[in-house]
Amino acid sequence: MKPVIVVHGGAGRIFKEQEKACRSGVVRAVLRGYGILKRGGTALDAVEEAVRSMEDDPHFNAGCGSVLNEKGEVEMDAIIMDGKNLASGAVSAVKCVANPIKIARLVMEKTKHVLLTDQGAHLFAQAMGVPEIPEEKLITERSQERWKKNLEPDSNPEEFQKDLGTVGAVALDSEGNVACATSTGGLSNKLIGRVGDTACIGSGGYADNYSGAASTTGHGESIMKVVLARLILYHMEQGMSPEMAADTALDYMKTRVGGLGGVIIVNNSGEWAARFSTKQMSWATVKDDQLYYGIYTGERHTKSVDEAFASESEEF
Amino acid sequence: MKPVIVVHGGAGRIFKEQEKACRSGVVRAVLRGYGILKRGGTALDAVEEAVRSMEDDPHFNAGCGSVLNEKGEVEMDAIIMDGKNLASGAVSAVKCVANPIKIARLVMEKTKHVLLTDQGAHLFAQAMGVPEIPEEKLITERSQERWKKNLEPDSNPEEFQKDLGTVGAVALDSEGNVACATSTGGLSNKLIGRVGDTACIGSGGYADNYSGAASTTGHGESIMKVVLARLILYHMEQGMSPEMAADTALDYMKTRVGGLGGVIIVNNSGEWAARFSTKQMSWATVKDDQLYYGIYTGERHTKSVDEAFASESEEF
Repeated sequence: MKPVIVVHGGAGRIFKEQEKACRSGVVRAVLRGYGILKRGGTALDAVEEAVRSMEDDPHFNAGCGSVLNEKGEVEMDAIIMDGKNLASGAVSAVKCVANPIKIARLVMEKTKHVLLTDQGAHLFAQAMGVPEIPEEKLITERSQERWKKNLEPDSNPEEFQKDLGTVGAVALDSEGNVACATSTGGLSNKLIGRVGDTACIGSGGYADNYSGAASTTGHGESIMKVVLARLILYHMEQGMSPEMAADTALDYMKTRVGGLGGVIIVNNSGEWAARFSTKQMSWATVKDDQLYYGIYTGERHTKSVDEAFASESEEF
Repeated sequence: MKPVIVVHGGAGRIFKEQEKACRSGVVRAVLRGYGILKRGGTALDAVEEAVRSMEDDPHFNAGCGSVLNEKGEVEMDAIIMDGKNLASGAVSAVKCVANPIKIARLVMEKTKHVLLTDQGAHLFAQAMGVPEIPEEKLITERSQERWKKNLEPDSNPEEFQKDLGTVGAVALDSEGNVACATSTGGLSNKLIGRVGDTACIGSGGYADNYSGAASTTGHGESIMKVVLARLILYHMEQGMSPEMAADTALDYMKTRVGGLGGVIIVNNSGEWAARFSTKQMSWATVKDDQLYYGIYTGERHTKSVDEAFASESEEF
């Protein structure tokens, strides 16, 4: 089986001055994940690595760069899932760690549970030796400015909900296993303790070797109401292509609960899709040693992976 | 539309000396919920009332009577969902409140979010004026004994996982709306901050007027991996009866991830089912003014509702 990986850096509104950094960020993430697959690594390791790369990138709403809650704090959710046996790990409302996706992976591998939250997740991370970092290291000037702006009496809550974000990855490895991973800082100025779709299996992501893997982004509450990732796989089980399954599910979410979002998908034969109902979504894919990436509807750049690796430090 | 309500008091192992109290508890809960439906009330109010009744009953693993986490504390999860518009509310890892289902309902109705966790859920409950109660009021002698026994060096962790519990309700009201509600103390001796299926939309419950409503119970981690409640509704969307959908999904969960559980279902034309792959599940239903209830596979007692209301204080 030829490996495939798809990543997203969040659906929503991407400001003009952020576009280049977002394109570079998703390309860097997809190449890191692909490097693992190319060396015969697992889909699980590849999606974790890709997500970790975007958590470390301050341009995305996950890890460093996460938006702030009503109190000005960073509270993050993450999920990882192995399509081979449906093994899953997730965390919600975690603070002061660089890579929530790493803790999600540890929950999956070191506990009998699937989801740990808030104080319990913190204790678990400590017990696993995950280093605690000062909250300031996760907060960017941009996230702080947005938070302050949203606190102004004339702020339009509908407006800032457009900046959605979340990062994610799906992959198919050479053994035919699929996996997904998703990580987020959630919604700007959210209530303390608000958990979105990302931590909920079936909503923020789902992976099943019988069909494929999906990672979602967008308005979390809407995604949860329609259990978006599982819905997409269900459509694929019924014979739809990844693209058709994505569009059908995103249309349904818009019609039924008025929510916008985006998804990336790979099926178990290597077909993939990156689709969104928002204005933009940064995404990148590698398949057959070709890199594809874009931000706007219809935008699709192509490069050979060798060329991309050689120019990784450049802008895309 | 003739109203229907089904409740469960948890799938798992029910000890002989608890059977009578469990039968009485589910019958009391279903009658309370049915009382609301009979007066023209909504499915949403009926499932909340039924679940609240079992949260207040110390014989069930929810509210008072919840099992204890590794530290000997009560941490509870709950969910409620309205099939009309997929509006949902949930809480995870909440402490020191009598009725988590009430806070889940408040999350649904008073916030733009769906799920609040731990410290944030606590702050929200305070802001809503939900009274805080001392933890001791939620802890029974039975839950404390079990916790201590599980801490003994020769305890068998697989053994105590058989005592699963969770309570739930699904209903169809006279307007044709369906709703579900589920509430739990989780797994005995769970890690601090462990969140199970109950707080996750699609796993612990799902309600959609297009098909019906389901509430699940059993091994939470397995239920999450297969997104059990949503899976059942998919099967119903494909034309399966509630009973067939439940059995198909429970069989799949057993085969794919080795998990046992139980479900209650009502579809949008009033057909219902209470099915389980565990040894027992306490359940009760009212339809067409007839009460049905049982605990063992094949056990199904029938009474008229008038007779049941008259003898509500008696044992069943």
